[in-house]
Amino acid sequence: MSKYDRVYNFSAGPSMLPLEVIEDVAANLCNYKGTGESVMEMSHRSKEFQQIIDDAEANLRKLINIPDNYKVLFLQGGGTTQFSMVPLNLLRKSKKADYIVTGQWAKKAYKEATKFGDIKLVASSEEDTYSYIPEVKKDQFRTDADYAYICTNNTIYGTHYPYVPDTGDVPLVADMSSCFLSEEIDVSKYGIIWAGAQKNVAPAGVTIVIIRDDLVGFADEKCPVYLDYKIHVDKGSMYNTPPCFSIYVAGEVFKYLLKIGGIKEMHERDVRKAGKLYDYIDSSSMFKGTVRKEDRSLMNVTFVTGDEALDKKFIAEAKEQGMINLAGHRSVGGMRASIYNAMPEDGVDALIAFMKKFEAENK
Amino acid sequence: MSKYDRVYNFSAGPSMLPLEVIEDVAANLCNYKGTGESVMEMSHRSKEFQQIIDDAEANLRKLINIPDNYKVLFLQGGGTTQFSMVPLNLLRKSKKADYIVTGQWAKKAYKEATKFGDIKLVASSEEDTYSYIPEVKKDQFRTDADYAYICTNNTIYGTHYPYVPDTGDVPLVADMSSCFLSEEIDVSKYGIIWAGAQKNVAPAGVTIVIIRDDLVGFADEKCPVYLDYKIHVDKGSMYNTPPCFSIYVAGEVFKYLLKIGGIKEMHERDVRKAGKLYDYIDSSSMFKGTVRKEDRSLMNVTFVTGDEALDKKFIAEAKEQGMINLAGHRSVGGMRASIYNAMPEDGVDALIAFMKKFEAENK
Ligand SMILES: Cc1ncc(COP(=O)(O)O)c(C=O)c1O
Ligand SMILES: Cc1ncc(COP(=O)(O)O)c(C=O)c1O
Ligand SMILES: [Mg+2]
Ligand SMILES: [Mg+2]
Ligand SMILES: [Mg+2]
Ligand SMILES: [Mg+2]
Repeated sequence: MSKYDRVYNFSAGPSMLPLEVIEDVAANLCNYKGTGESVMEMSHRSKEFQQIIDDAEANLRKLINIPDNYKVLFLQGGGTTQFSMVPLNLLRKSKKADYIVTGQWAKKAYKEATKFGDIKLVASSEEDTYSYIPEVKKDQFRTDADYAYICTNNTIYGTHYPYVPDTGDVPLVADMSSCFLSEEIDVSKYGIIWAGAQKNVAPAGVTIVIIRDDLVGFADEKCPVYLDYKIHVDKGSMYNTPPCFSIYVAGEVFKYLLKIGGIKEMHERDVRKAGKLYDYIDSSSMFKGTVRKEDRSLMNVTFVTGDEALDKKFIAEAKEQGMINLAGHRSVGGMRASIYNAMPEDGVDALIAFMKKFEAENK
Repeated sequence: MSKYDRVYNFSAGPSMLPLEVIEDVAANLCNYKGTGESVMEMSHRSKEFQQIIDDAEANLRKLINIPDNYKVLFLQGGGTTQFSMVPLNLLRKSKKADYIVTGQWAKKAYKEATKFGDIKLVASSEEDTYSYIPEVKKDQFRTDADYAYICTNNTIYGTHYPYVPDTGDVPLVADMSSCFLSEEIDVSKYGIIWAGAQKNVAPAGVTIVIIRDDLVGFADEKCPVYLDYKIHVDKGSMYNTPPCFSIYVAGEVFKYLLKIGGIKEMHERDVRKAGKLYDYIDSSSMFKGTVRKEDRSLMNVTFVTGDEALDKKFIAEAKEQGMINLAGHRSVGGMRASIYNAMPEDGVDALIAFMKKFEAENK
């Protein structure tokens, strides 16, 4: 593999980062660009860190064309905290919100929201183990809902929305944690886009929130302070000490993406990688994909042999070959190859080669 | 200075880390101990990361003798999130809590708590710009209070409690963010001890919470999920993706502290460093300490010349000499030298030498 003897890490998150970013972070760890300090030690009130966070935001804006009327936040607390922040801030008039549940994360978001308002389950694919994305029409959403909610890419089940639901005037909130920066998006179609960094962006510990500015400022006065978007908007994500190091690495990944040609180029690579793998799975008589074809994720490729013992053998032998974390989520079993942006095409090629060999040896 | 040309960083947080820890993290950044991956990329569900977090907890328990009936959590959201979590979880019977306000952080904690219950301001040193710690007697606390709250070391004003308030049977909650691991403590005197990592422990992004187990499990069912201590206790801080990298660095700092001789040795060094600096300030006719002597912090040494323009000149010239972040908090001005555990004694010596020179040149 590389001079560092790195494995191919198919983890669903935290997951691989571009090696050249890690190398650069390592080279700057004891003295960041001549400042005489590590970013790990840097005051968040210093002009050096202000530059880091400003650049990160500016480069993210460039990458996905974020309109000026959207704010960008770098927050702690993970996706799980967004499950609460969304209803605590957006249930502002009717206290109604409409959720589509396409996997465990959407379901957790839905359940959390039910603590705070009148939440409608618009559609769910739970009865089919979340193996597809329901087609939801505009008239299924309540016109007086304060927002509608989806999870664009379902990390556990390997599905991805092939369309953006039309919710009319109801602001659409999307958890894009596991497909963020893997495809071009039209930010203006959303009220909030949020994504945990630990898939395509940075080490765990920072969540990116992109929020339309007219949705800021509606948290109840009893909302826990950290959970009020306005607190963070007003202080540019520095109301309190931000997760500086994760923000810095995120910024380095944004620069890297711009350098290789932006999201368009990244998406082409992702399509090529996932395409190869799905093609092989479809041609194989041993391996079967678990998801309806139109709804397949480019990021999380789920498959099974149909024989649990054989799945286990596959995962164990792959690990010996330096291909780690291929087990499906503990709630579903089988295999899941998470091939995020930073998974090199070589890693996918190695996986396919290994699958072929395994199939030949085990039929 | 060192081969990395590092500055002496007197930041109040994020702040210096032991150089040998940073060097080791850098050396392992592209391939952590032969795993073939960076800790930044490591699945939190892997046995490698489980080992990292287990070791971190075990070493912290050893360092400060945490009794078995206390849980240790590694959380996101910073100190600011603890301001809410404490009342949301501990206001469980009378909904009363008693606060001592000795600085801006204690005041923020107090204000946040007033959203959720009947909160008494037991004592405050605000009228004297928080330059001392009030002596509070047991009978000043309400016997039916659900908890009492203090901030042990006041980062901004440079004070530190010279005693542990006797609250009788009322559980004492202490924000130890800026003195954690700088002195031996008796954990059993507290209901909760919490500390943001960004001073003595790790890069920003993780907060350590030590909670007596009988205080877990009282959050209201409408409490936002991330803010319920029990959620995290039940899953060993892995209910959701934890801030893995900050936890890893915290663990490396714990190992380093054990190696040099534990908290006893660290405390002796801290006493020596702060002692020198205060001695010089007291002997100087230009510089004056701002805090009552008995209540002086070992970590945050605040002082002034009495002339704002001279303060500014001092801070600017110190910076040119590689001694950065010596300005007092924007709310108080003057100077603050934060000399946390990782500030080498050489850094304090350099500061004193510079102060002497500055005094000679500017009298
Ligand atoms: C799509 C999606 N949403 C939310 C989450 C939860 O994020 P966190 O673990 O940061 O709370 C995950 C976690 O993997 C996820 O994949
Ligand atoms: C003593 C103390 N408590 C709480 C905080 C707030 O922590 P955070 O910025 O992580 O919210 C600070 C911040 O410096 C602090 O010094
Ligand atoms: Mg899901
Ligand atoms: Mg097939
Ligand atoms: Mg304070
Ligand atoms: Mg003096």
